Amino acid sequence: MSRDFDPLASPLLTDLYQLTMLQGYVDQGMTDTAVFELFVRKLPEGRNFLVAAGLEQALEFLENLRFGEAEIAWLKSTGRFNDHLLDHLAGLRFTGDVQAMPEGTVFFPDEPVLRVVAPMPEAQLVESRLINILHLQILLASKAVRSRLAAPDKLLVDFGMRRAHGAEAGMFAARATYIAGFAGSSTVLAEQRYGVPAFGTMAHSFVQAHDSETLAFEHFARSQPDNVVLLIDTYDTLAGARKVAAMADRLKAEGCPVKAVRLDSGDLTALSKQVRRILDDAGHPEIGIFCSGNLDEYAVRDLLAAGAPIDGFGIGTRLDTSNDAPYLDCAYKLQEYAGIARRKRSTGKATWPGRKQVYRQLDDDGRLRRDILTLEDDTQAGQPLLQPVMRNGQRLAPPEDLATIRARLDAELARLPDALKRLEPATPPEVVVAPALKRLAEEVDRRTAETRDEEPGTRN
Amino acid sequence: MSRDFDPLASPLLTDLYQLTMLQGYVDQGMTDTAVFELFVRKLPEGRNFLVAAGLEQALEFLENLRFGEAEIAWLKSTGRFNDHLLDHLAGLRFTGDVQAMPEGTVFFPDEPVLRVVAPMPEAQLVESRLINILHLQILLASKAVRSRLAAPDKLLVDFGMRRAHGAEAGMFAARATYIAGFAGSSTVLAEQRYGVPAFGTMAHSFVQAHDSETLAFEHFARSQPDNVVLLIDTYDTLAGARKVAAMADRLKAEGCPVKAVRLDSGDLTALSKQVRRILDDAGHPEIGIFCSGNLDEYAVRDLLAAGAPIDGFGIGTRLDTSNDAPYLDCAYKLQEYAGIARRKRSTGKATWPGRKQVYRQLDDDGRLRRDILTLEDDTQAGQPLLQPVMRNGQRLAPPEDLATIRARLDAELARLPDALKRLEPATPPEVVVAPALKRLAEEVDRRTAETRDEEPGTRN
Repeated sequence: MSRDFDPLASPLLTDLYQLTMLQGYVDQGMTDTAVFELFVRKLPEGRNFLVAAGLEQALEFLENLRFGEAEIAWLKSTGRFNDHLLDHLAGLRFTGDVQAMPEGTVFFPDEPVLRVVAPMPEAQLVESRLINILHLQILLASKAVRSRLAAPDKLLVDFGMRRAHGAEAGMFAARATYIAGFAGSSTVLAEQRYGVPAFGTMAHSFVQAHDSETLAFEHFARSQPDNVVLLIDTYDTLAGARKVAAMADRLKAEGCPVKAVRLDSGDLTALSKQVRRILDDAGHPEIGIFCSGNLDEYAVRDLLAAGAPIDGFGIGTRLDTSNDAPYLDCAYKLQEYAGIARRKRSTGKATWPGRKQVYRQLDDDGRLRRDILTLEDDTQAGQPLLQPVMRNGQRLAPPEDLATIRARLDAELARLPDALKRLEPATPPEVVVAPALKRLAEEVDRRTAETRDEEPGTRN
Repeated sequence: MSRDFDPLASPLLTDLYQLTMLQGYVDQGMTDTAVFELFVRKLPEGRNFLVAAGLEQALEFLENLRFGEAEIAWLKSTGRFNDHLLDHLAGLRFTGDVQAMPEGTVFFPDEPVLRVVAPMPEAQLVESRLINILHLQILLASKAVRSRLAAPDKLLVDFGMRRAHGAEAGMFAARATYIAGFAGSSTVLAEQRYGVPAFGTMAHSFVQAHDSETLAFEHFARSQPDNVVLLIDTYDTLAGARKVAAMADRLKAEGCPVKAVRLDSGDLTALSKQVRRILDDAGHPEIGIFCSGNLDEYAVRDLLAAGAPIDGFGIGTRLDTSNDAPYLDCAYKLQEYAGIARRKRSTGKATWPGRKQVYRQLDDDGRLRRDILTLEDDTQAGQPLLQPVMRNGQRLAPPEDLATIRARLDAELARLPDALKRLEPATPPEVVVAPALKRLAEEVDRRTAETRDEEPGTRN
């Protein structure tokens, strides 16, 4: 299914080094079980927590992973790989196990969001695309939830597809922002494919193409009688509002009542107050005010703090590009191979070895107190966050619907300390590394020091 | 072809307002010729110029635009549209004309990069996806060219697919960075689909999976004898360099000579100098040093300024997300409808009306002096930048190959004033608005003021 949906999910959508490493693994018969975990190293500035998202697309990718004849033929034509590898790739399927935090789970740095346990070539090959899928949806859900926290009672709509980074980014943005509590997205395909409600009315071009603004509004209302939201800032926002006020009764009588006006430019605080007054004075308190134009969670917060009478926001470019933090420092790292725990020690990039679990502990008032990062087999008090989702390459449950994921994030937010829910930076809860995990890390370091090659040293 | 390649290029990958507007246009018979132009309103901080890119994918999208039966049926099922519109959509193809700057052209704010002249419903519908394609490739080419200007003689490779924003962003990044002069990309699919050379060797996991680093290097070299680049920072970079130095002669004798080592962490200036010395002292000046890890054009410039003996750079996340400027303020605006020029006047977002051309004028020394922005039929001295690329929905020439586009950008860069080619902010050349264009804008304003609806004014 997902191959039809997205052939960019070709197995060749990977980094070349995955294939050159696979050549080495296959040549050496190194196909034992590998354990990789995906985690974020640190929070970017301007984020107090992260939201797990994208698991559904990650599982689709794993389920559908295979090299077709054309791909094998092309790989052969590059001359980079021997037949041994090509034969291996032709038969390769993802046969491993996956544990993951369910989508909508709040999480913090160093906590694995997803673990893959599979024969080394499979587990290695999937790295690039798994990160590509999960990084973006986590990034966007973690950005979008901030707008929702800034405006919990307002209608929020994702408007960003056009300046999202490509087709898939637009689609993932619609999905991730909906998970984060948005009412929907302007992206039509996201309604068809994901069930994210589509929102939208008119652009300035519609007004410009008509000889008069009033005529444009009339035409639009008659064509979309259930969805009359009129864009009033093409020429002069207040004049536009007065036109709407003047024609609202007539349109209502015609069966196409005006639901809202949209403002997309200018001083939205002042204009929304003036427009509200114009509409109210004309006896139309039922006509809402919807705003868009370079918005983000900070702008939304400031507008509401200034008392702007705005009922909904279309949030686009800055949301869909996560402009204040356009990437996360995330990684997918080998934690165990052939039954032996492993650890990367590169400067500033050391990792915790082994198969891990995160236990979430709450205060007496039900708020998140701290997380315990430990080994999978070291049971701790609290709620374990990683759950089995795939075994032997098969899903353990059907895809979750987005309503379930939204409800999960709701419950998660209810448990978050208030400080974390503000836009201002706050100290995240402690992620305690359990003694069992620390002991394993020390063991790995000792073993690595012993078995690492003797230094060639002064011979050079 | 592109539908097979990318079904995300579904016609439903658009904003809902395009379809609600189309309902209005079709209901009113407003299917006269519309002229839209795509341009960037202003340069983001940290960019002295922009690079046109993405035209090929834009033309593919236009050529392949059509609503299939499933899409029409789904649209009908939403209950939002009447049969009149659905019938119109079922038969809709892009039948318009396109003028555009060829890919690789350097351009500046307010200059149209692309113009669509087509019946209103077609020209309107394509807005969202056209921006989605062109915005991203322009963004990425304009970011990537800065690394190339910072390191004109070095091997530059795009490493960013995993943290690019989704599959298409990874692919467009490979293409746009190659246009900008990179040697290639780590993304395998970009070699298969676009012919962008793929680069890559090994990750830390390969080293970690082996019991010793030396063994990992040996295995890798034997499996990839023509491509021996060894990652030496998994445990200790200098120890790794000494191991490589000690085994280099032996590997060469085995037919798998070490081409380079890769450093991915730590103080790259200090480490590259120490590694260079270790390799040179061991008699291996032929082994290159390749660096990666959180790089961008500033880091590359600083490393080279500090005398770091680095031969090539893998540049990833910050490049592929254009992290210092993750979006451009670009727009696709109606400039003419039914033979009458139009202009949006929203605060801060006013546009120049009519069908425009950009003439590039050079100094006596062949450097870019200024651009003239004028109407298509107002010929000026200089090189016109917009060229016809599609007529009646048909391409006027086969797709350009990437070598041609790279060569065009080379020539463009040779004509750029030196100040613009530094990373520091510089004043871009003047874009002069010609009198003919100013006159048209004034006419449009006068006409709009006359024909705009009478203000309902005090009646409210």
